[in-house]
This record gives sequence, structure tokens and C-alpha cells, in this order.
Amino acid sequence: MIQQQYPSELLEKAVTEFSKLPGIGRKTALRLVLWMLRQDDQDVEQFAAAIQLLKEEVKYCKICHNISDTDICPICSDSHRDKTTVCVVENIQDVMAIENTQQFHGLYHVLGGIISPMDGMGPSDIEIDSLVKRVAKGGVKEVILALSPTMEGDTTNFYIYRKLSGYDVKVSVIARGVAVGNELEYTDEVTLGRSIMNRTIFEDK
Amino acid sequence: MIQQQYPSELLEKAVTEFSKLPGIGRKTALRLVLWMLRQDDQDVEQFAAAIQLLKEEVKYCKICHNISDTDICPICSDSHRDKTTVCVVENIQDVMAIENTQQFHGLYHVLGGIISPMDGMGPSDIEIDSLVKRVAKGGVKEVILALSPTMEGDTTNFYIYRKLSGYDVKVSVIARGVAVGNELEYTDEVTLGRSIMNRTIFEDK
Repeated sequence: MIQQQYPSELLEKAVTEFSKLPGIGRKTALRLVLWMLRQDDQDVEQFAAAIQLLKEEVKYCKICHNISDTDICPICSDSHRDKTTVCVVENIQDVMAIENTQQFHGLYHVLGGIISPMDGMGPSDIEIDSLVKRVAKGGVKEVILALSPTMEGDTTNFYIYRKLSGYDVKVSVIARGVAVGNELEYTDEVTLGRSIMNRTIFEDK
Repeated sequence: MIQQQYPSELLEKAVTEFSKLPGIGRKTALRLVLWMLRQDDQDVEQFAAAIQLLKEEVKYCKICHNISDTDICPICSDSHRDKTTVCVVENIQDVMAIENTQQFHGLYHVLGGIISPMDGMGPSDIEIDSLVKRVAKGGVKEVILALSPTMEGDTTNFYIYRKLSGYDVKVSVIARGVAVGNELEYTDEVTLGRSIMNRTIFEDK
């Protein structure tokens, strides 16, 4: 492919910066930059300022490591939440996804990654030690492991389970089974097999 | 859908800014912002600066209206280019696409849009008057209309053709026909019909 000739160096630099974003190629980057150029000065200023301010001012909660504007995040400082249950998740998006279900009222622990030797991520690169310390302090009765049902997720689950085995705490894993609304016929065998193994008693509510 | 609860207002603001970009929804915006957070301070600074600098310093060439770092763009100021031929295009991407073909050695005229009453774009919203003035000044022998082969493109072509009809200038339109490498069988009827109508003599080179 011929290297694109940009009519302006400033334009080329802006396109290069945008194309560093994950999933954004040079063509999309150019489209985004030209769109930016059509906006008001004030809007562009506001866009740049929002990113810079976030990067400069962002804090991570000292308890759960979630993104927060304060030292302790709103979830950890909420007196209505059940402080005896801690749900372990990979990242911030997972906290938001679980919060959206409105089914969980405990606290979180954001690992900030998952054990993945292929990507050079070991147990010490993620917030496992701080989880163990949190449990060692006492007060936590149950740790719910809510990682993705992948090989890496299973490895991390097992590692955490072993690390917590010396403490008086229940360790559970979120249910794996047939997704609600999915056709049984198209569910993969492993999931279907597990959903039979882990069947629950049908209750008449 | 439940409104996402962001753990940080700064995060939410940055996500809102990113989600204003065309084709970027709130989920993608969140992914991009969290990716930004993982970069070095310096990289984020550089990203924001590139956008702001472009917006503040960008110029448009006084002759062809292409983006440029100088008052006259590198193409218009290039003494090796044929100043008697002007290729009319909708936007900057089209200039780059035609430059990439390395088949055109004349100058450009960037309209900055296309006549589209549905989008509230009339002839006075785009650079048609400046094109007519450019031709009126003399020196231009041919105007090549290289707009997209759509209804709006055809309307704009016709409007420009009428506006230039009083001047001693040849007006041409880029060839429409079967795309190189495409299967004839799957070419739409209008394009195929036109490609037969506008057939050229087969030459033995």
C-alpha cells in the first residue's frame, strides 16, 4: 500500500495520535480528526481538557482499586452496602456491568487484570496481594470470584482460591450455564455439560 | 436500558467527550478512555496537544481550500504541476485518494461539501463561487469534476457545469464504469449500462 500523503504535518500528527487508540486505523483516525476540525474551538478545547483532567486527577480507591474521584470510592464508603461480601472482578467495566444488574449489594475488588503468562501478566502484576490482606484483616465472610469463564479466568480463580485457603472465608464462583434467552440447541457442549452438572433445585416461587 | 453508573465523574466526562465522536458509542468510548488511562502522562499530553495545535494552527489553502500548514498548499505552490487543469473534489480525503493514484498532475479545488438540500447544504455553503472566480481569472483550460457518483454528486456536477458555461473552459467528469477487478456479473445495472454507453476504443499499446 502506498503511504498516504497528508497535505499538512499538523493533520498528520493528529491522525497519528488518534490511530494509536485501540481499534482505530489511520482511515478512521483521519475521519475523526476532520470531524474534530469542523467543531467549535470550545468543543475541541473541552475534549482535550476532559482527557487531561482525568489523567491528572484520577484516583484509585484505596480499598477496592476501582477508579474514583476520592480516596475511597462511593461504593466502599456506602454504609448501606454489605461489607462482608467481596466480589472479585478483572476491571472497571465488570464493576459497572454487575452494578447494572442491581443484584449485588456487597463490595468489589478490582484486580486490574488477569493471570495470563502469554501476555506476561503474573500474579504479582495484579491486585491479589491486596485482596489477601483485605481478607486477613477480617470482616470478610465471602469472596465471590466473578472473572470471565476463560482459561485465564480459571487460572486466576484457582490461584486466588489457594491463596485464601488459610483464612476463614467462603470462596464462591459465579454460576456458569446456559445464557438466559439463548437457544439450548446452539449452546456449546462445555457450557451445556456444566449447566447440567451444576443444576439447581426448581423452586416454586 | 439502564443508564450506566460511572464510578468517577471525571471518567464520565471523558467518556461523554469521546462518545461525541462519529461512530463511537459509550461502550467504545469507555474502552478508549480506560486505554488512555493506562498510557504514560506524556503520551496523553501529546495526544491532547496534537488535537489542540491542529485546531488552532490549521490553515486552508487560499487557492484550492485544501488543509495546509501554509497559506498556499504544497500542491498549489509546486511549479512542476499543471496549473491549467483543476480537479474538483468534495473533501480532503478525496484529494489524498487521487494523489495516491499518482495519475493526476494538475491542481485541485476542494468544495468542502456537496449540494444536498436534505442536509441543508446549498451551493453557497460550498466553495463554488471561488471556483468560478478561479476560472474567470483565466489560465484554467480544463475543470475535471471528480465527485461521488450519487444523486448529490450529479446535482453538484450539473450546477458547476452551468456556472462555468459562460467561460472558455472544458468541463469533464471522471469515467464511470465497471470497477477494475470486479466481476461483471455482480456489477449493478446502471453502472454496467453506463459502461457500455461510454465504451472506449480498444487500443493495442
